[in-house]
Amino acid sequence: MNTLRVSQDALQDFIEAVFVKEGLPPADAKTVAALMAEADLQGSDGHGVIRLLPYLKRLRAGGINKHPHIRVVHERAAMAVVDGDNGMGHLVVTRAVDIAIEKARSAGVAWVGTRFSNHAGPASLYARRPLQHDMLGLYFAVGNANHLPPWGGTEALLSTNPIAAGIPTGDEPPVVLDMATTVAAYGKVKALAKRGEQMPPGWMVDRQGEPLLDPQRSNEGFLLPIGGYKGYGLALIVGLLAGTLGGAAMGRDVVDFNADHVSVTNTGQAILVIDLAAFGDPAVFKHAVDTLVRDIRGSERMANVERIWLPGEQSFDKRRKHAQEGIPLPPTLLDELDTLAAETGVSPLARLAPA
Amino acid sequence: MNTLRVSQDALQDFIEAVFVKEGLPPADAKTVAALMAEADLQGSDGHGVIRLLPYLKRLRAGGINKHPHIRVVHERAAMAVVDGDNGMGHLVVTRAVDIAIEKARSAGVAWVGTRFSNHAGPASLYARRPLQHDMLGLYFAVGNANHLPPWGGTEALLSTNPIAAGIPTGDEPPVVLDMATTVAAYGKVKALAKRGEQMPPGWMVDRQGEPLLDPQRSNEGFLLPIGGYKGYGLALIVGLLAGTLGGAAMGRDVVDFNADHVSVTNTGQAILVIDLAAFGDPAVFKHAVDTLVRDIRGSERMANVERIWLPGEQSFDKRRKHAQEGIPLPPTLLDELDTLAAETGVSPLARLAPA
Repeated sequence: MNTLRVSQDALQDFIEAVFVKEGLPPADAKTVAALMAEADLQGSDGHGVIRLLPYLKRLRAGGINKHPHIRVVHERAAMAVVDGDNGMGHLVVTRAVDIAIEKARSAGVAWVGTRFSNHAGPASLYARRPLQHDMLGLYFAVGNANHLPPWGGTEALLSTNPIAAGIPTGDEPPVVLDMATTVAAYGKVKALAKRGEQMPPGWMVDRQGEPLLDPQRSNEGFLLPIGGYKGYGLALIVGLLAGTLGGAAMGRDVVDFNADHVSVTNTGQAILVIDLAAFGDPAVFKHAVDTLVRDIRGSERMANVERIWLPGEQSFDKRRKHAQEGIPLPPTLLDELDTLAAETGVSPLARLAPA
Repeated sequence: MNTLRVSQDALQDFIEAVFVKEGLPPADAKTVAALMAEADLQGSDGHGVIRLLPYLKRLRAGGINKHPHIRVVHERAAMAVVDGDNGMGHLVVTRAVDIAIEKARSAGVAWVGTRFSNHAGPASLYARRPLQHDMLGLYFAVGNANHLPPWGGTEALLSTNPIAAGIPTGDEPPVVLDMATTVAAYGKVKALAKRGEQMPPGWMVDRQGEPLLDPQRSNEGFLLPIGGYKGYGLALIVGLLAGTLGGAAMGRDVVDFNADHVSVTNTGQAILVIDLAAFGDPAVFKHAVDTLVRDIRGSERMANVERIWLPGEQSFDKRRKHAQEGIPLPPTLLDELDTLAAETGVSPLARLAPA
C-alpha cells in the first residue's frame, strides 16, 4: 500500500503557511486551512488539500481577492445577503452561516445568501456548523462549472448544484446529507479518467442521449440529473435559491473555474438555519431522530446488503478513523505539495510514521 | 372519446355542497373544495375530486375532525408550529402558509410547520400561494403511507415525501416544481394497475431487489428513490423537516391512510416563505428568472426532443386549457359522484356540453 498519511494538524498548518506566504491575512489563512483540512479529515478528498493548487492559480492570477471587504448588503430579522467581495468562498460562507446562527437564535429561523463568493469546499461543512448550537442547517450552492443541460437539451446551462443538510441527534452521529443533484459529481468523472477506468451507465450521456462510459470523452457529453427531469428541476430550484435570489451568477453567467482563473465567478450559496429550541425542547427532537436512526439502521436488509447506512455516517466514521490513524493522501499529491513547499519556502508537509 | 368535462366552478360547488351535507362548517367546506377543484384544474388529478370519497370515508369513520381548533403552539418572529387538531389538511396547511406569508413580510423569511394535519392535496398549490405576494415558497410534506425502504433495506420506513417550490417570474409562467422523492408516486402505480398496464423498470423492486413490473404485485415490493441512495437521503431529510421538527409522525409512526380510516394520522407539512423585497427589487429577481427561463427553453435540444419544458409549465398550460374547455373527468369517477349525489341529496355534478 502506497498511501501515506498526515495528521489533521500538520495538514492545516501546511495549508495555512502556504496561504500566508501567498499574502492572505493570517486569520483568513487559518480559517480556510482549517476547513480544507476538515474536508480531508471527513473523506471529502475532492474538496480538501487537492484544491490548494487550483486556488493558488486563481489567487496568483487575480481571480480571487486576498483582502475582501465581506459585508452585509441586505438584512432583516430573519435574513441577510452577504457580499463576499470576491474573497475565498470559505470565508464568505463561514460569515454567512455565523450570521444565520445569530439571527436564528432570536427569530427561530434565518436564511443568509451570498454573492461574489467563490468555491467553498464541501457543502456538508457548512450544513454541519449549526449543529453545535442545537440548530439544523440546510445549504444550497451553485456549482462552479455548468455540466448539466435542461432535460432534453444539449446545452449545459446548469451545474451540479448541491443540497446539504445537517440534523442534530442525541447519542447517534448527526444526520448529514451532502449531495449533488446530478447522479455523479464532475470530480468523480475526473477521478475515473485519471485512473483509466470506465464510468457506470447512468452517469453521463453523449449529445445523442446515448450512454457515455469513457471519462476521457467527458467533454463530448453531459452529466445526468438524479431522477431524470426531477433532478433537472431540483438543480434549477437550487440555483435560483443559491444564485439568483442573492444576486449571484446562475445559468449562462456561471464562470467555468476549471478553464478561467481570472473572471470574477460571483458564486452564490445559501444557508437556512433553524433553531430547535423554537420548536420545543431540543432534547425531544434529538431523541426522536435517534429513534428513527436506530429504526432505520436495524431494519430488515436485502439479502446481499451488509449494513444500512444513514446519511453522513460514513463520513463520521472516517473522521474518527482519520483522527486516530492520520489522513491518507495519494503520493502524487504529496509530491506536488513538496514542490509547492520548495517553491514557496514553507516547511514540507510532515508524513506520519507508518503504523 | 369518452371523457366528459366539467367547469371549475361546478366542480367546486359540488364538492362544497357534499362537505356541507357531511357537516363541515360552510367556510371550511368552501376552502377545501376550492383547493380540490384547483388540483383538477391544473391536472393534478390524483389529488382532486378523486379524493372526495376517501376523505368522506375518513370523515364518517371519525378519522378527521370536522370542527378542529387549528392553533399556533410555538411561535417566534420567523417561525410557527400550527396544530391542526386533526382537521382537513387543506385547512391546516392554508393557515400555515398564510401565517408564513405574514411573518415573511416583516422578518423577510418564515418557516411554519404543521402537526396533527392530514392529507392536503398537491404540494404545488401551497408552494404557489406566496407567489401573488412576490414571495417564493418551498414546501415539504410527509406522505400518508410508507412505501420506501432505506437504501438496501426491505422495510418501508419512509414515504414518497415530496418537495415543492414556487418561484415568481415576470412575464413567464411561474417556475413550480412538485416532485415525490421516489421515481414514481404511489398513485401512478395504482393508476397503471387499474388500466392493466405494466410499470417501466426503475419504478419498483421486489424484496430481492429485482425489477418489479406488474403493478398488481406492488404490495410485494417497494418504490425506488430518485438517484438511489441520494433520494433515500432526501426523503429522510424531508420527513425530518416536515414531520419530526414540527412534532408530527415520521418513520414507524406514519399511519397508512389507505388501510386505516380511523387512527389520527398526525400528518406534518412545512412551508418556507421568502419575501423577494427583502433581497432587493423584486422586479430585478423576476426579470432574471424570466431570462433564465427563456435561455433554457430556447437552448439546443436533443434530436428527438420537441420542446424543453420548465417545471410547472405543463400544469400552467393545463390550467388555461381546462379553464377554457372544462376539466376532463373519467366516466367511472363521474358515476361514483352521481351515486354520492343521490345518497347525500346534493345536485349532481353538471357536465359541460360537448364542444
